[in-house]
Amino acid sequence: MTTRREQTSQESRELILTAAAELFAEKGYRQTTFADVAERSGISRGSIPWHFGSKEGLLLAVLERSVQLVRLGVTEAESVEAGFERLVEGLGTLLTLPTTRLFVTLLVEALEPGSPIHGRYLEIHDALREHCRRWLERVPLPPELPADALAVAIVGAGIGIHQQWLLAPDRVDPHRALAALRTLVSAAL
Amino acid sequence: MTTRREQTSQESRELILTAAAELFAEKGYRQTTFADVAERSGISRGSIPWHFGSKEGLLLAVLERSVQLVRLGVTEAESVEAGFERLVEGLGTLLTLPTTRLFVTLLVEALEPGSPIHGRYLEIHDALREHCRRWLERVPLPPELPADALAVAIVGAGIGIHQQWLLAPDRVDPHRALAALRTLVSAAL
Repeated sequence: MTTRREQTSQESRELILTAAAELFAEKGYRQTTFADVAERSGISRGSIPWHFGSKEGLLLAVLERSVQLVRLGVTEAESVEAGFERLVEGLGTLLTLPTTRLFVTLLVEALEPGSPIHGRYLEIHDALREHCRRWLERVPLPPELPADALAVAIVGAGIGIHQQWLLAPDRVDPHRALAALRTLVSAAL
Repeated sequence: MTTRREQTSQESRELILTAAAELFAEKGYRQTTFADVAERSGISRGSIPWHFGSKEGLLLAVLERSVQLVRLGVTEAESVEAGFERLVEGLGTLLTLPTTRLFVTLLVEALEPGSPIHGRYLEIHDALREHCRRWLERVPLPPELPADALAVAIVGAGIGIHQQWLLAPDRVDPHRALAALRTLVSAAL
């Protein structure tokens, strides 16, 4: 049983995580302060370190939640078995989350093999590729199209479409590009 | 006619640009000093600001040269008219250039619309998409595959494959992924 106190603590945690994900994406990780997070979330400044320790602890918790969201999305898609339509829809939804912009903001730090962020990125990329590969293994692929290599290309298209759109939102329509990707894959299989 | 002095100056400039592109990609822009560039290039430290003014001037010159290299590659591919094989080969070559890693390192700054790097990124993305779109317009595309949207997806795949590989070089084979992309496009058209 969850006590009232535990429930409130869990709610505060969620409010802080949502506010932090938005702020990290908007202002950057370094520029965001505990005071900003307190203001946005409506939770007192003092309770943020109580929940997450340091700012790095907060960042890791934000990323951890994103990993869970991606995994959850992957599992749901699998049970519905609506195939590639669903996968591309999922990519389209991911694009609109503020956390997705955060992944670009943190990319440079994620490339440092020693950084704590590196492992989280590996998990997320692995989850996306794995999901895509498992879907591809259910369709009859020609022998010159190995599922694992194609999964890297498809997940890559999702990543690269997102970044082109962030850089030039008035020139790039990410949903039309994802639709073209879906048509391309359907036509080839 | 080019004088001996002009030729030497041009050679020094090239040596500095090559060294700077490598160092920015390896150590990051902020961590790289004129002393590092001097040591790597063999050109005296004092002549670097003479050529490029500030460190930002040096960075912009490195990016400008990359834009030229991409444009040159695009033009050459166009004249050969070897189509998509050639395009994917070009993407494969781009992946191996140290400058390409630099583009990831600078991505966050490039996303700031006011930054001088932003414009260079737009130019490079536009050149890649334009090249891809022009090639696609030469093949008979089904009406549900508009060339401009497909170009965003294909260039996106190139960008995203590169980043997955940088993050996990032991799990991702970029050349196999590009080959899968090539097979996918050929099969669909």
